[in-house]
Amino acid sequence: MLKKTFFSAGVALATLASPAAFAAETADLLIKDAIVLTMNADKTVYPNGVVAVKGNKIVAVGDETLAQKYQAKTVLDVDGDIVMPGLINSHTHASMTVFRSLGDDVPDRLHRYIFPLEKKLVSRDMVRIGAQLANVEMLKGGVTTYADMYYFEDEVAKTVDKIGMRAVLGETVIKFPVADAANAEEGIQYALNFIDAYKDHPRITPAFAPHAPYTNTTEVLQKITQLSLEHDVPVMTHLAESDRENEVIAERSGGKSPVAYMAEIGALTPNLVGAHVINVDENDIALLKRNDVGIAHNMSANIKSAKGVSPALKMFDDGLRIGLGTDGPMSGNTLSTIDEFNQVAKVHKLVNKDRAAMPPVKVIEMATIGAARALHMEDKIGSLDVGKLADIIVIDTKAPNMVPLYNPYSALVYSAYASNVKHAIVDGRLLMQERDILTVDEDAIRDEALQFADKVRQTVLASGEEIR
Amino acid sequence: MLKKTFFSAGVALATLASPAAFAAETADLLIKDAIVLTMNADKTVYPNGVVAVKGNKIVAVGDETLAQKYQAKTVLDVDGDIVMPGLINSHTHASMTVFRSLGDDVPDRLHRYIFPLEKKLVSRDMVRIGAQLANVEMLKGGVTTYADMYYFEDEVAKTVDKIGMRAVLGETVIKFPVADAANAEEGIQYALNFIDAYKDHPRITPAFAPHAPYTNTTEVLQKITQLSLEHDVPVMTHLAESDRENEVIAERSGGKSPVAYMAEIGALTPNLVGAHVINVDENDIALLKRNDVGIAHNMSANIKSAKGVSPALKMFDDGLRIGLGTDGPMSGNTLSTIDEFNQVAKVHKLVNKDRAAMPPVKVIEMATIGAARALHMEDKIGSLDVGKLADIIVIDTKAPNMVPLYNPYSALVYSAYASNVKHAIVDGRLLMQERDILTVDEDAIRDEALQFADKVRQTVLASGEEIR
Repeated sequence: MLKKTFFSAGVALATLASPAAFAAETADLLIKDAIVLTMNADKTVYPNGVVAVKGNKIVAVGDETLAQKYQAKTVLDVDGDIVMPGLINSHTHASMTVFRSLGDDVPDRLHRYIFPLEKKLVSRDMVRIGAQLANVEMLKGGVTTYADMYYFEDEVAKTVDKIGMRAVLGETVIKFPVADAANAEEGIQYALNFIDAYKDHPRITPAFAPHAPYTNTTEVLQKITQLSLEHDVPVMTHLAESDRENEVIAERSGGKSPVAYMAEIGALTPNLVGAHVINVDENDIALLKRNDVGIAHNMSANIKSAKGVSPALKMFDDGLRIGLGTDGPMSGNTLSTIDEFNQVAKVHKLVNKDRAAMPPVKVIEMATIGAARALHMEDKIGSLDVGKLADIIVIDTKAPNMVPLYNPYSALVYSAYASNVKHAIVDGRLLMQERDILTVDEDAIRDEALQFADKVRQTVLASGEEIR
Repeated sequence: MLKKTFFSAGVALATLASPAAFAAETADLLIKDAIVLTMNADKTVYPNGVVAVKGNKIVAVGDETLAQKYQAKTVLDVDGDIVMPGLINSHTHASMTVFRSLGDDVPDRLHRYIFPLEKKLVSRDMVRIGAQLANVEMLKGGVTTYADMYYFEDEVAKTVDKIGMRAVLGETVIKFPVADAANAEEGIQYALNFIDAYKDHPRITPAFAPHAPYTNTTEVLQKITQLSLEHDVPVMTHLAESDRENEVIAERSGGKSPVAYMAEIGALTPNLVGAHVINVDENDIALLKRNDVGIAHNMSANIKSAKGVSPALKMFDDGLRIGLGTDGPMSGNTLSTIDEFNQVAKVHKLVNKDRAAMPPVKVIEMATIGAARALHMEDKIGSLDVGKLADIIVIDTKAPNMVPLYNPYSALVYSAYASNVKHAIVDGRLLMQERDILTVDEDAIRDEALQFADKVRQTVLASGEEIR
């Protein structure tokens, strides 16, 4: 019932493929009976669609006639559920799940909670424990790829490898002493070792993550830029996020904005992914576009911290590479970009005083192919196109909040919960089935996080602060 | 683990009750091993708490020692989950679920979709089918009481009676011909009949629902006010919601605001519950307070329609009776106020440019006892206090998005999904257990809604509009 007469217009419908019953091709996985949102260049929607996967790639996407063309080892009849590209979370700090909900809304929280806790507790163990929990939460929320910035990223990499997700992992470089480096130089060396170890991993892209322009010197930013071009790896940074950053950079650069300063020192390259990008003017936006910089839009974290609303809609409409991110779980506080959809769609309407601004299809684009573009991975992931890697999620359309379903984009953006994600496939492999993750032990991961949380509590109390 | 050393300070802890092992009292239901958020006057939190229920009332709330005092027919060990008052959705149009996600963001949607569809499709059947689905969604999202405004409210009442929830049901009065009344006079008569039929129902409060000041005459508004005082029933209305309303009322009243106009005509009484209340100034807020009017704050719907942000935080801090509502599912689009929490907490921070504004505890207050106050039901529901009606929900603290949990208010507001609600009790009766609703057939309700959606699609297409 759901599949019939779904769209009458306004959405590109696919051309009819001819059935070929006696010339069956083979596939490893065939997903059928689906509302397929391809997020391809034409935004084709197949109201009764099929996706075929062979190895780790998508080999066919089309309407119901495609089902007859393929002989598949596994057939997943999703009975009218939504099938779409896996979500891409373009900015997070996964391991910080262990601190989630602690000290929220305390005005000087950074100095009273976050920095002291990180100083005392960031370790290989903490990074592993936090990342494991984050991976479970993200995969259960339909995130198949994420971009992370933190310390000991080789530990994050091990957890990503194990659960089977895809990630861009950026090792932090910052001018202060941190858990895995005494200074920026050591941070760069840590990153280089990490890049060397993971540069050929099929699902993990190692990267540099200079914390922000104002927390690194010009020399360090330039050196990282040069190394990133030599090694052909991304550079992820917090950019144009805070008033403090504006002040420091203006002082350093004779009044320039953070983006203009980064352009001047040669650090705006196609390898760069800037997170937040709130404090930008027309000139900054033009610089970001001209230099093909990727952008992570983190609505939920930005309004929670009262930092303001990024002109993400303008950047999207101007054709910049922009995708959704959640920021870390001390900021966001959850890690599925589904939790961002509602806020992204609505807050842009509010600030633009236009109820037609930021329609759902743009939100879904920023969550999928837009985020792939932000990470310069749009040739590999972000849409259901033949030849792309098979990162696919299935969304339950029978949960009461999703019924009825006249427009799948609206339903996803205004109604869906992260918990409506039923199945998740990454690199052609079914990682979550009926909300059970098949590759890791969710209970053991949760218990380890809860044990670590006791250590966090003790550390906070020993420092004289309250658990609040 | 979750229960220990939960709070060190900042939250009122209960006094220790003395165990009385050999003087056991009896209860029908004992909930134990819970993080109990009482939402009582002191905001007492029991990190390892117990709630005892006898008949339809709460007979005891306290710490773990209470468990030994009671012999209960049913014991619910919730293993560290959050136990709190059932959520109260102070404004919705439940039956409109059948139109959800249709025509979202179309600028003239009201005249192109909503009004034509309502004209053709509102019927006893539609109201029943839509309300059934809404009830299931709300209960699964922890809403135990809701305030509704629509047509054929006696049909809504039957569905509420059947599922076992609590509701304030307002029969619409409007000056245009509608499905169940040719004019306002007939609407008033319909409401009177409904009030007469349901005035003694233990869980249903019948009410008048004049649609808005600008869609009713002064005479009708005054007549309803008088009848509501005679019959001692609530009056629910949309108030200070739109620019159009401002214009019409200013013209009618010689420049008055909607609230000032309602005060002038004698329609601001303690029986009134105003929904939205966006366009109000200091004087309006003082009038609302002086007249003890209840207010429903519908953040999500208001920003989606770019109408603006209600000064709800100021009204809350000024001590007005204010609670959260979702508005109808063509506006909101979902019906659990859990979906509002994040947006309420964050958008007030954004517009107040203050990351400490609207802390989670205020949001939870507006979702529970605040909403009870808005409906003038705070002596019966809204907190876990001895003698109150037993409307109680249990929230899963082991879902990955809820782990770890340092502050239950923060976790609920910034992390929880409606789907994290595990159990729901209304009037002492367990209506949902492990997310299964025990009193109605969820699948049958969904299937009936999907069938009706086909009728909606045909109606839209026949009118020459698109399904979008």
